[in-house]
Amino acid sequence: MQRIEQHASFGGRQEVWRHASASTGTPMNFGIYLPPQALAGQRCPVLYWLSGLTCSEQNFITKAGVQPHAAAHGLIVVAPDTSPRGPGVADDAAYDLGQGAGFYLNATQAPWAAHYRMQDYVADELPALIERHFPASDARGIFGHSMGGHGALVTALRHPGRYRSVSALAPIAAPTQVPWGRKALAAYLGDDPAAWAGWDAVALIATARERLPLLIDQGEADEFLPQLRPDLLRAACEAAGHPLTLRLQPGYDHSYYFIASFIGEHVAHHAGALRS
Amino acid sequence: MQRIEQHASFGGRQEVWRHASASTGTPMNFGIYLPPQALAGQRCPVLYWLSGLTCSEQNFITKAGVQPHAAAHGLIVVAPDTSPRGPGVADDAAYDLGQGAGFYLNATQAPWAAHYRMQDYVADELPALIERHFPASDARGIFGHSMGGHGALVTALRHPGRYRSVSALAPIAAPTQVPWGRKALAAYLGDDPAAWAGWDAVALIATARERLPLLIDQGEADEFLPQLRPDLLRAACEAAGHPLTLRLQPGYDHSYYFIASFIGEHVAHHAGALRS
Repeated sequence: MQRIEQHASFGGRQEVWRHASASTGTPMNFGIYLPPQALAGQRCPVLYWLSGLTCSEQNFITKAGVQPHAAAHGLIVVAPDTSPRGPGVADDAAYDLGQGAGFYLNATQAPWAAHYRMQDYVADELPALIERHFPASDARGIFGHSMGGHGALVTALRHPGRYRSVSALAPIAAPTQVPWGRKALAAYLGDDPAAWAGWDAVALIATARERLPLLIDQGEADEFLPQLRPDLLRAACEAAGHPLTLRLQPGYDHSYYFIASFIGEHVAHHAGALRS
Repeated sequence: MQRIEQHASFGGRQEVWRHASASTGTPMNFGIYLPPQALAGQRCPVLYWLSGLTCSEQNFITKAGVQPHAAAHGLIVVAPDTSPRGPGVADDAAYDLGQGAGFYLNATQAPWAAHYRMQDYVADELPALIERHFPASDARGIFGHSMGGHGALVTALRHPGRYRSVSALAPIAAPTQVPWGRKALAAYLGDDPAAWAGWDAVALIATARERLPLLIDQGEADEFLPQLRPDLLRAACEAAGHPLTLRLQPGYDHSYYFIASFIGEHVAHHAGALRS
């Protein structure tokens, strides 16, 4: 494991690491913010961020403004890349499939199955690595944006007991019912929709064994609303009695300006669960 | 004048505009953050940010995290591009000369003199434009980073009475005495160093007619310290009795992580002068 960047930031340190991933069979990069409390030797809870389509680990750590909030609450924040990458990794010319578009699942179909095992990576390998190599406790939260909001919801719903808190900004809430999701699920999992339901938050909510409260922010001026379907998430939570705080934010779009505007409230939401 | 971006941000709006500049004879882009107070129709003070080498108007507006502070204090923040650009504009293969490296001066030498009139642009044309087209008062502050820190200091020192406040992060404080500055000043102004002194903060401090207090933050782990020379700025301020708060920040480098860590204190410094 190799540290490839480090920068002092709000009394803590923003770092980027590169390591050989057993899940993906490729090198993977992740960003990690170590708050002042971690640099002072305290074990801190860890908040995992999953980014959206086209992002690497860089977008979130440079644009979201998460560091002052993580420093204030004493949380480590880990932000992995969104897919395996490299010349030997399958790819597609479109921005919404292949490298930069791993959808946080384990692919079963050629040519993707060889490396696209992002669910194993984010849910198992990465937390184990973080808890072994950094001053991290095993209190975990998870959040993300768009494709990464889908990833956060699905990862928490698939692993009851693993996370204490979950939230999302403009998540792809019902990937089995929208173009982005149907394209990716068909490519990675095959044409039979029966294989897709385990990767769809709206579908998983119906049978969830754990009722972690969901905090969701969604911009009302989001240019991708038809891909996101917060209405279906609301209906699923109401039907299942799953606790949901869904906030529609007037005027906000899908960009990092939206993420930055609400990231502080999301970090506070997680801190409430992780620090209690 | 054409708005090419707009995003809701912290209750206000981050916009990017493009217009034909009379100073540079080219289209110029600038970012402008309109805080909630401005959107509600109040005239707000304006804080001008000048960016460093290689930057466009995008770097600061996406990475510095200035918007929550501007919103809290009710300040408009304007961030122009760092040079004229385009196929008809002189350029150099190096990152530290030509497009992206205008040094906020008015060039006198061929081939630069045709378009490189960034001082006229930032000190005269841009404020006039902002005060005509936006809900801006004529209370102005100016700050910047690296080459833009040089630009902020020099622009304020050359125009007594035009700005109420000035600050800088890791400025090129003595361009006549460091490689970055000497290269640019020789190219834009010619080989005679007599023409350079009017564009050097350390030189201008000696004869300043106005004693605006300077707030300077400088990372102690800045990889470009030999290009910046805060020691010469300190000596010049001491010799001239110019009020200076120079803060050396242990561990901080030259990146936007450094800028973001201290941007809130800089905005508060300006707000104190602009709102009084």
